[in-house]
Amino acid sequence: MSHGIEHIDVNGWLPTATIHNGIAYLSGVVPAEGTSVAAQTRSVLDQIDGRLARCGTSKKYLLEVSIWLSDISTFGEMNPVYIEWLHGIPPPARACVEAKLARPEWTVEIRVNAVVPK
Amino acid sequence: MSHGIEHIDVNGWLPTATIHNGIAYLSGVVPAEGTSVAAQTRSVLDQIDGRLARCGTSKKYLLEVSIWLSDISTFGEMNPVYIEWLHGIPPPARACVEAKLARPEWTVEIRVNAVVPK
Amino acid sequence: MSHGIEHIDVNGWLPTATIHNGIAYLSGVVPAEGTSVAAQTRSVLDQIDGRLARCGTSKKYLLEVSIWLSDISTFGEMNPVYIEWLHGIPPPARACVEAKLARPEWTVEIRVNAVVPK
Repeated sequence: MSHGIEHIDVNGWLPTATIHNGIAYLSGVVPAEGTSVAAQTRSVLDQIDGRLARCGTSKKYLLEVSIWLSDISTFGEMNPVYIEWLHGIPPPARACVEAKLARPEWTVEIRVNAVVPK
Repeated sequence: MSHGIEHIDVNGWLPTATIHNGIAYLSGVVPAEGTSVAAQTRSVLDQIDGRLARCGTSKKYLLEVSIWLSDISTFGEMNPVYIEWLHGIPPPARACVEAKLARPEWTVEIRVNAVVPK
Repeated sequence: MSHGIEHIDVNGWLPTATIHNGIAYLSGVVPAEGTSVAAQTRSVLDQIDGRLARCGTSKKYLLEVSIWLSDISTFGEMNPVYIEWLHGIPPPARACVEAKLARPEWTVEIRVNAVVPK
């Protein structure tokens, strides 16, 4: 806790998340494995599950999701994986646009904010 | 209300907005009609007015606006429509960058957060 | 103060920031000088320091940072400047993707949110 802000799992200049006033703000998450858009989306969402848990919350508490695809024509490959991930859960607000990512092999990056329940 | 979060007008895996602790977080809004950038911007802002109303708020209470243009050289076509929309209102924080959008006919997408007055 | 929201340094239709419930939401900041990515990044971060001060806060209180590079292959030119800026400070959540910016000479734009200490 520093200045009323928690910094979760800081790795050098990048934390997994900051938490303030009951909201966790995650850094953008990139694929840890996979080459297809679907496999990379699964990898990103798996990591988000783990990082939300580290913050004391879960996907049930998501407020906002931002998705960047390196090629927006792959929307139809990402979206079914996203929908499956949210099965049975009230869905968060979302936007999805195209952007090239920091490594050319990455096809998807996702950033989320979530409520941390007391 | 689920876990302290309201999910407004959920359509499958996408809500119009989530609301938590007095802030509405809208999903990205894309054009419902129009082909020119100006007409599509008007369509997006009209929809945002309606969606803010559904959340119990209005453009007077905007905190943040994010604008994506599929071609940043059309900034000068979007911006006068945006300025007119905000006429007489204290303006929200904003960023505007280029991004290709989920459908090639869409030239503009806008996402906003707003306070929900009590 | 309007509707519980402070609008800092409004210039026409664009404020430096909005403040609500102890969080400052800055508009996207673009370079005021410099041509290299490193120099433009320094210019943007210098301006952010000044704007956070105008909001009654500082980089120690950052929650979230969004970085857009007009050419993602310049990540390695931007990042050392960013890391130096955060030296000795708990780092905020961050995402960095590529996007063309409103003027072709701009290579980097950064947007931040920060807690405003009481």
